[in-house]
This record gives sequence, structure tokens and C-alpha cells, in this order.
Amino acid sequence: MTQHTIAFLGLGSMGLAMATNLLKAGHRLTVYNRTASKAEPLRQLGATVAPTPAEAVKDAEFVFTMVTDDAALQEICRGPEGILSALPQGAVHASCSTVAPDTNRRLAEEHARHGSSLVTAPVFGKPDVAAAGKLWLAVAGEASAREKLKLVLEHLGQGVHDFGDDVGAASIVKLCGNFMLGAAIEAMAEAFTLAQKSGLERQQVYEFFTSTLFNTPIYKSYGKLIAERHYQPVGAPPAIIRKDLRLILDESRARVVPMPFANIIHDHLSTSVAKGEQNDWAGFAERVTEGAGL
Amino acid sequence: MTQHTIAFLGLGSMGLAMATNLLKAGHRLTVYNRTASKAEPLRQLGATVAPTPAEAVKDAEFVFTMVTDDAALQEICRGPEGILSALPQGAVHASCSTVAPDTNRRLAEEHARHGSSLVTAPVFGKPDVAAAGKLWLAVAGEASAREKLKLVLEHLGQGVHDFGDDVGAASIVKLCGNFMLGAAIEAMAEAFTLAQKSGLERQQVYEFFTSTLFNTPIYKSYGKLIAERHYQPVGAPPAIIRKDLRLILDESRARVVPMPFANIIHDHLSTSVAKGEQNDWAGFAERVTEGAGL
Amino acid sequence: MTQHTIAFLGLGSMGLAMATNLLKAGHRLTVYNRTASKAEPLRQLGATVAPTPAEAVKDAEFVFTMVTDDAALQEICRGPEGILSALPQGAVHASCSTVAPDTNRRLAEEHARHGSSLVTAPVFGKPDVAAAGKLWLAVAGEASAREKLKLVLEHLGQGVHDFGDDVGAASIVKLCGNFMLGAAIEAMAEAFTLAQKSGLERQQVYEFFTSTLFNTPIYKSYGKLIAERHYQPVGAPPAIIRKDLRLILDESRARVVPMPFANIIHDHLSTSVAKGEQNDWAGFAERVTEGAGL
Amino acid sequence: MTQHTIAFLGLGSMGLAMATNLLKAGHRLTVYNRTASKAEPLRQLGATVAPTPAEAVKDAEFVFTMVTDDAALQEICRGPEGILSALPQGAVHASCSTVAPDTNRRLAEEHARHGSSLVTAPVFGKPDVAAAGKLWLAVAGEASAREKLKLVLEHLGQGVHDFGDDVGAASIVKLCGNFMLGAAIEAMAEAFTLAQKSGLERQQVYEFFTSTLFNTPIYKSYGKLIAERHYQPVGAPPAIIRKDLRLILDESRARVVPMPFANIIHDHLSTSVAKGEQNDWAGFAERVTEGAGL
Repeated sequence: MTQHTIAFLGLGSMGLAMATNLLKAGHRLTVYNRTASKAEPLRQLGATVAPTPAEAVKDAEFVFTMVTDDAALQEICRGPEGILSALPQGAVHASCSTVAPDTNRRLAEEHARHGSSLVTAPVFGKPDVAAAGKLWLAVAGEASAREKLKLVLEHLGQGVHDFGDDVGAASIVKLCGNFMLGAAIEAMAEAFTLAQKSGLERQQVYEFFTSTLFNTPIYKSYGKLIAERHYQPVGAPPAIIRKDLRLILDESRARVVPMPFANIIHDHLSTSVAKGEQNDWAGFAERVTEGAGL
Repeated sequence: MTQHTIAFLGLGSMGLAMATNLLKAGHRLTVYNRTASKAEPLRQLGATVAPTPAEAVKDAEFVFTMVTDDAALQEICRGPEGILSALPQGAVHASCSTVAPDTNRRLAEEHARHGSSLVTAPVFGKPDVAAAGKLWLAVAGEASAREKLKLVLEHLGQGVHDFGDDVGAASIVKLCGNFMLGAAIEAMAEAFTLAQKSGLERQQVYEFFTSTLFNTPIYKSYGKLIAERHYQPVGAPPAIIRKDLRLILDESRARVVPMPFANIIHDHLSTSVAKGEQNDWAGFAERVTEGAGL
Repeated sequence: MTQHTIAFLGLGSMGLAMATNLLKAGHRLTVYNRTASKAEPLRQLGATVAPTPAEAVKDAEFVFTMVTDDAALQEICRGPEGILSALPQGAVHASCSTVAPDTNRRLAEEHARHGSSLVTAPVFGKPDVAAAGKLWLAVAGEASAREKLKLVLEHLGQGVHDFGDDVGAASIVKLCGNFMLGAAIEAMAEAFTLAQKSGLERQQVYEFFTSTLFNTPIYKSYGKLIAERHYQPVGAPPAIIRKDLRLILDESRARVVPMPFANIIHDHLSTSVAKGEQNDWAGFAERVTEGAGL
Repeated sequence: MTQHTIAFLGLGSMGLAMATNLLKAGHRLTVYNRTASKAEPLRQLGATVAPTPAEAVKDAEFVFTMVTDDAALQEICRGPEGILSALPQGAVHASCSTVAPDTNRRLAEEHARHGSSLVTAPVFGKPDVAAAGKLWLAVAGEASAREKLKLVLEHLGQGVHDFGDDVGAASIVKLCGNFMLGAAIEAMAEAFTLAQKSGLERQQVYEFFTSTLFNTPIYKSYGKLIAERHYQPVGAPPAIIRKDLRLILDESRARVVPMPFANIIHDHLSTSVAKGEQNDWAGFAERVTEGAGL
């Protein structure tokens, strides 16, 4: 394995797990996080902690970003101490955050003018999957940068799926994924609630379906929260995934594609946000139990 | 293995596959189908073909029914040449059709007065899964009848799930299953169509999701139809599954459970029926492509 | 004016107001109500109170029924002391209740065999409108019976609209009316709630729209409840109108017409019922405020 | 009456009718339109035609703008030859276009810095209503500017409704109005289509409701298009009102208010746009007839 110089910016639970795996794979790692204390575990494992994005990326061959939303990504790229102020020519920026396709497209153009590249590289899986190095990864962007990045991404997951030259394509796929998860959550919420009001145990229905037709980690992990009506711990809060649903609805409007399921999921998440619920986003399943008077 | 005397009524593609497996397992089989020619393959394998339900069941320990809808099931039970006119006392009727919970509940009461038992025994899987003996099965009904039936059901699938004494419970589970399949279909239809209008290949998005987050036979088999927008061959026509969605909505009304996803799936299937589409029921995915002007 | 012998069955607030107007118009009136005390005001005005439907109708030229639902109507017609056991040949039954088209169609056939006629005659307006003799009325049924009935109906409202020979047609129109009222309620609920969360007063928005684009008694009276979020007094409880929405959805299924607005109204009313709300049915507007976290 | 110097920018069918009434009322009028030929009728009535917005407004006490969307309004205000480059201090800008509340709020701040005022002044009614001087008008903005403007607005309609100091408030009200119209259209589409498939005439149902419960010009004019399924002439094309629905959904997201009816109307309009329909926006009613297979 070739050792690379990598910067990792954004150390939430996903970012932390990914950065740890890059370090363990033997790469030289410099990290940055707005709240510096989050970087401490990585420092103890040998990472350098930088005070600004610019400091973090100044010698990097690869930069990973895993931040909350479009505004945070734009800030970390374009700010006075941002990535584009210091990144070496020829470096590749792996943009892993869930943001609008057009945000990545516009940043990719700025990278191109700068002499570097942005590759969209969303990841699929929860933090525990990331920690286990079992993420699924998608990439899209300029061909040679994409190929370079794949070598590094291999340490993070169980396969890299290539969506071609349009940097926005992988963002669409990521948004579609979160939408499809939301649809599975709503479907289970409706089915389990009907079963409960018909005299069955939610748990029993959950166990049946997740050991037969819907025998996947996704249905099992979200379904367990819904069956038990206990949405802890919080993998992602409602406001974050509501933002993703808003992005997919924005795209559906730009592309003129009615998406009735997406509307319902978005609206259920909106109520979670309006009520200030401190649950995992799957807690929007409670909209169904509330509607049924439970 | 104990050899049993079994009657099988209703030889559509599912029924035929199931009856064949019972015969191959070594049981004595008498079959009945309204269109007698459908029974011919079973006759050649050693089954007796009866001219009426009553003739079919007159010596049976177990009777299986797999018919189209509530009316057909009621007719085959209560008609002048129906099951209840000839079934031996102590026999067990495995009611496998997708019908309303209350239909099975009422027939179970009639069986009890007759001295026999009805156990609801819906099956999960397509005809090819049935042929491979890989169905998942659920049972609900009176305890001793249920236990007896399980011994026979083992030849048909990869596990029997027990939903207790309420004969209606397993019908609810079956309806919930078809609803959850419909939700997966609509979710893929929306995601693939958005991706397509954003410049991606439907096929590529399909392959990504069904090899990662949604890596199950269900998503693969229905997803392929949706990705290719080619809904052949017809596993089940729209009118049949629309009936199932109507049953689940009837139940949701009786139990007072709003189910917005179920409404959408039902309405999309209604349009398939109104247009006279000759597709598999998953063809309701075309409502999304139509809505997007494709 | 010709004086007629009329029976009036069902003395809820609508029925009482209508019966009073028939009496004041100079007709001979016999009344029946399950709870006899409700008939007292009419007795004081000169009506005869009968102990059974049969007694009430035995000399009648016209019979009016205004009861809660399909089951009540069927019972009052077909029961051992029911209308059809005693009604004179040639009499006309004005079926005013909100019931399924097929319920009226089937009862009309029974009347025809009996030698009498059933005309569907739904009324539009609230009890105060009925008391003022300002209802709008629709009729449908056999032509000569319909013409006879119109002479009497004129005392009840401000116009009789004729929907022809199919007895079911006027039931459809009545159901469509309640659906359209529900749509106006939901639309106001969404608009007023958005305005409120954007910093406006609900009351001000209500006053603007009901004095301009939507300047009608319907929008004014329901809109006032929604603007004030105070749904008293109860004109009709949620369960009654939810039944009407169920009837319209049943018809939409039989006729294969997707009705997404009707689904939403029905589901919002279902939650009102599930929560046991003691409000006027327009209180389903609270589903929107709840969804917005208010 | 005091004669004022007024500029009118944007001469679509609404703008033309309004400008004509201001001229007829005796004011000095200068007009501007991107396509200058549209101004010809006004020139013949005595208006001055200006080559740029700046030229049009350089002596104005009042400026009216009635343009297609947010981008057009921003361009006409901020462009190099825009309103803010030439407007006299103390002048009042009546912003009549249907745009986002925040667009008017931001432009009002720029006016304030400039020494002029922006008052949001949406109008309610179709072009024929505007020509008859029967519009309903709403205003919101800084108090003294609002009072000044009311004197001029009186020539345009049958009443000015005051929504206070927040310039965005009147935009919300305008968007709510278009949403409520859309809800009435969808409700009629569903009701008429169900009635038709149940054997009634659409026209007859239309006439009944618009002469009874829904006896208003709005229901009559849109209902006629829906009853006849002929959506000509085009008052407003689907893309324009779809934009309004998008704006209201944007606001509903910012304010966290689920609006299920608004989602449906938006999606139906999206399909009209995706199909390239050349109908009035009420033509989205065809989504219902299509869904029913007509």
C-alpha cells in the first residue's frame, strides 16, 4: 500500500469513524474540526490536529469533508481559512457530505479553476458500519481524480460504485438512498400500527418481516426502533434528514418529477422538527401512531 | 413422515406449485379447480382430480384453499357442493388466500359449528419461490389445529411463523406484506425516475441499491421491472393486488389508522385498472413516470 | 295549496326543523323518533306522535326519513314495524339521509315491488338554514313520484334540483357536497396556519378571504371555527361526516376514481375519531395546527 | 382628486388593465415593458412610453410593478437601468407581483436605504375583473407609505385590505389565495369526475353546486372550465401558478407547516408542465380524469 497524506475535515460520528480507518490503514492524517476536542481520539492515534481548514490541507494529496449541510461545506471550502485558499495543485477533494448536487457541481468548478479536483463521494451506512469499515461508497467526478480516490476509499468500505463524470450524480444517489430509507420507515410504521390496532404485537410483526421478505440490516435496525417505539440512540436527528428530504424535493421540482412519498416523509419529519422531538429521525414513525390516536 | 390425505382447491400458479410439493412429499392428494384442465399436471403425478369441492374433501384430513378473493373462498366453502357440505369432522382447513381477516374469522366459526377447524395460512413468495419449496408461511387459528397443520406446511417452505389463536391475525400480516411490497415499488419508482431525469441511468441506480442497502430478492425482482420499465411476465395483475390494498384500507378504517402510503399505492393501482393495463401489478410504477411527463 | 298527509321519521336537529316547516305549511303530520321526547315540540304544534314507523306511515301520502346512516335507514324501512310493512300503495318515500347510492337503489326496488316509490331527496344546509326554510334540495327517482314530491319539497327550501331517474344520483351529489365542504375546510386550515406561523393573525386572513374571493356562507361559517380554533357548537360530529367520506371513497373505488383530497380529509377525520374529539367535524382542521407543532 | 405622476412597469394582461384604469382616473402615467409594443394602447390613451425602467420612474411619485416572478422583479429594481438607480426620494413602489415574501422584504430594505419605500400590493382577480376596476387589493409595508398608496389604489378595485407593517405579510396572503383557488379546482375535479363515472353529467353537478353552496364567481369561472374539460382561454399558464405553489411550499418549509393539499396541487401542476400542456392552469384538473382512465 502506498502511504498518502490525507486531511480529514468534519469529525462527527461518521467522520470520526472514517478518519480512524484511514489512519489505521497507515496514511499520514491531519484533521480539523470546528470543536477541536472531537479530534482528541485521533491525535492519540497519531493524527496531527490543525487549527484551520487551510492548515489541515496545505500538504494534502487528498482532503475528505464530512460536514452537516451545504452552508458548512461552502464555508469550509471558500472561507478565508478555507480549503481552496491552501490546497496544493493536483490534490483531490472527496466531498462526502449529503448536499445538493449543484453545490458539489459549483465547488467542482472552483476546484478546476484552482488546479485541484472535487469528487463527490457519499457514503452509505450508519456510524457503526463506518467503524467496521463496511460502508458502501459511491463516486462521481472527473475521471482521473476519481480513479486516484478509489485507491484510498477502499480502506473505508466494502466496495466503491462509480457514477461517472457528473459530480452531481453521486449526490442524487445519496439523496435517493435517504429517501428510500424514509419510505421503508413510513411503510413499517403504517404496517406495525395497523397490526397493533388489529390485536397483534408490533414486535412479532417486525420479527416476521425482517426475517423473511425484508431480511436486511436496514429494515432490521430501523424496524426495531419502530416496533419498540423507542427511537434512541439518535443516529441522525430529524432536522438533518428533513434537510435531505428538502434537497430531494428541490431536485424533484427542478426536474419536474412528482414524488408523493417524498412529500409525506418530508412533512412527517417537519412535524418532528416543529415539536422539537429529541429522537432519531426514524421517530417520525410516531406521526402514524399519533394519527391512530395511540 | 406420516402420509396424510390432503385436498387442494384452487390451482393457479401458486396453488399448483404448492400442491405439487405436497404430492412430491408423499401425501395422498385430491385436487379441484374450476377449470379442470389446470389439474392435469397433478393428475399425471398421481393426484386424484375431483369434480366438486365436496368430492375433493370428503375423505380429507387437510384441505388447502388458494383462490382469488373473498367471494371465491366463501363460495367454495358454503356452496351446495362446498367444503362444509362434505368435510369430515376433525379435519383442518388451511385457508391460504389473501382475504379479509373477518372472512376467515366468520368461516372459522362455521367450521367450529361443523366440527372442523379453519387455520389461516397465508404464504409469502412468488410462484417460482413456491415451486422451490422456499415460501415463508404464517399460521393463526385454534391451537391444536394449528399444530397439526404445521407438520404438513413444512413441506412448502422455509419456516412457519405462528401468530396465535386469532384466525384473522395471519390475514392482517399477509395484507401488511403486500402493502410493504407496494411501498418498496413506489419508492423505487420515485427514486429511479428522479435519477433518470437528473441524467443517471435507471439501471445503474437499481444495481447500486439492490447490491447495497436494499440487497434482497424482493427489491431485486420488483426493482428490475421498474428499472427496465418492462413489467412482464405478470406475476399478479393490478386488479388482484388493488383488491388487497382495498382490504388493508378497509381494515385501516375499521381500526381507525390513517395510512397515507397505502392510499397512494391503492390509487396508483386504481389507475392501472382504469387504464386496463396488462402488466404485472408493479407496473403502477408507471404512474410516476407519467407524472414526470416521460 | 293542497293539504297532504305526511309522515316524518327521524327528528334530529335537521329533521325537526324540516318537519316543523311542513307542519307550518298546513300539512297533516305524523312523526316518529326512536327517542320519543324529541317529538314533543311537534306534538305541541299539532303533529301526531306515532309509536312505530309502521303506525306513522299507515295513512301517509308522503314519508320523509332523516336518519343517521345506512343501517338506520334499512332498519326503519325493513324492520318488522318498518315503513314497508304498512305504507299505502302509491305513497312516496322521500329518503333524505346521507347514505350510499346503492342503499337507496336497493330500497327503491323494494318500494317498487311494494307498490310505492322511493325518491332520494338529500338536503344541503345546516339546521339553522333548514329552520329558515332555505335549504337547497336535490331529487332523483322515478319521474311521476319525483314530480309529486317536488310540490311538498317547495315548503322546505329555496329550490329543488332534479337529477333524473337514477335514485342513486342524488346520493352521489350529496356525498360530493360534503366532500367539497371538507376540501374547503382543509384548505382554510392550511392557509390560516401558514399565515399564523408567518406572523399574521388567523382572524385577519379569514376576514379578508371571506369578504373577497370566498365570500359565501359556507366559507364564512366554517372559516370562523377554523380562524378561532374553537369548533363549537357541534353541527355534526366527526364520526358522522367521516362515514360520509368513507361512502364517497367506497364509491370512488367502485367507479375507479382516485381522489387524493378525499383520502386526506378522511384520514384527518379518522384521527379526530381516534382521539375522541368532541368538536364539530370542522375540528379536523386541528390536524394541520398539530402538524405544525402549535 | 389629486393628480399624481405614476410609473407602471410590466404590461401583461393584468398590468395593462390596471395601468389603463390609472390613466382613466386622470393620473400622469409613464409606462415601461420589455416588449415595447404592449405599451402601444396606453400611448394612444396618453401615456408616455419609456425605454428603460430608470427613465420611466425618474419623476414618479408612485411606481407599480407587475412582473412574472422574483427574478424579473429583482432585475427591474436592481439592474443598471433599474428603478433604484433613478427613483426620486420619497417615492412609493407598489410591488404587485406574486413573489416570495422575502423578496419584497429585501427590496424594501434597499428602498429604505435609498430614501424611498416599497409597499407590497398584491391584487386578487382575473384580467377582466381588473379591467372593470373590481380587483380586491391588499397592502403591507411602512405605515405612511401604505397610507399614501391607498389613495391611488382606490381607482383599481373595490377595497384595499391592510395587512400592517411587515412588507412580507401581503405576499403571504396572495400566495394563500392562489393555494385556496387551487384547492377549489382540485375539489371540483375530483367531485365532477366521480359524478361522471357514476352516471351523472359533469355540467349538471357544476350548475347545482355553483348555484347553491359554492355560489361565487371563483367556483363558477374555474368550475366551468373543469365541467367542460376545456381550459381555454389561458388566464395563467401552469408554469406561473406552479411557481406560486413552489413559493408557498418554500414558505411552509421555512415555517414548518405541513400542507398536504398544497403538495398535491403542486405535483399536479408539475405534471401539466412536464407534459407541456398549453391550457389555463386549471387544466391540472385533468390529472384526476387521467387517473380515472377517462
